[in-house]
Amino acid sequence: MKALVHVTLKQQVLDPQGKAIARACASLGYEAVTSVRQGKLFEVRLDAADEVAARNLANELCEKLLANTVIEDYEVVRLDP
Amino acid sequence: MKALVHVTLKQQVLDPQGKAIARACASLGYEAVTSVRQGKLFEVRLDAADEVAARNLANELCEKLLANTVIEDYEVVRLDP
Repeated sequence: MKALVHVTLKQQVLDPQGKAIARACASLGYEAVTSVRQGKLFEVRLDAADEVAARNLANELCEKLLANTVIEDYEVVRLDP
Repeated sequence: MKALVHVTLKQQVLDPQGKAIARACASLGYEAVTSVRQGKLFEVRLDAADEVAARNLANELCEKLLANTVIEDYEVVRLDP
């Protein structure tokens, strides 16, 4: 199965990288861009008996390895066979 | 509007960061993980008259700034008001 995971900075955490991108947009003339926040995306292929097991494993990986839960949120957004 | 953008390495491009994560999974005992690929996620807030304009602007930003289209694919996966 393939799990698609989003890891994003918590809303209250500053995102200097996103701010830099937003400034770059403005300097390229894209004044319509008001803010940018950058996160991470993981495509994890894993062996699991069913969707529930796959989701549980993906969540455990996020807790242990993929996300820093002090400053980041994670979400398993999609599971594909 | 808020556009959610995925930027991922093209399938034929090596992803050493993903490989390192997959190895870390194995060394933590998660043998079920067969491969990991890492990508980037952007939440772009922008002023646009409608969904079509927002999607066009988001695609243009990807082409010009957010993605390196030689080695990366991008997709505007969601538009929220």
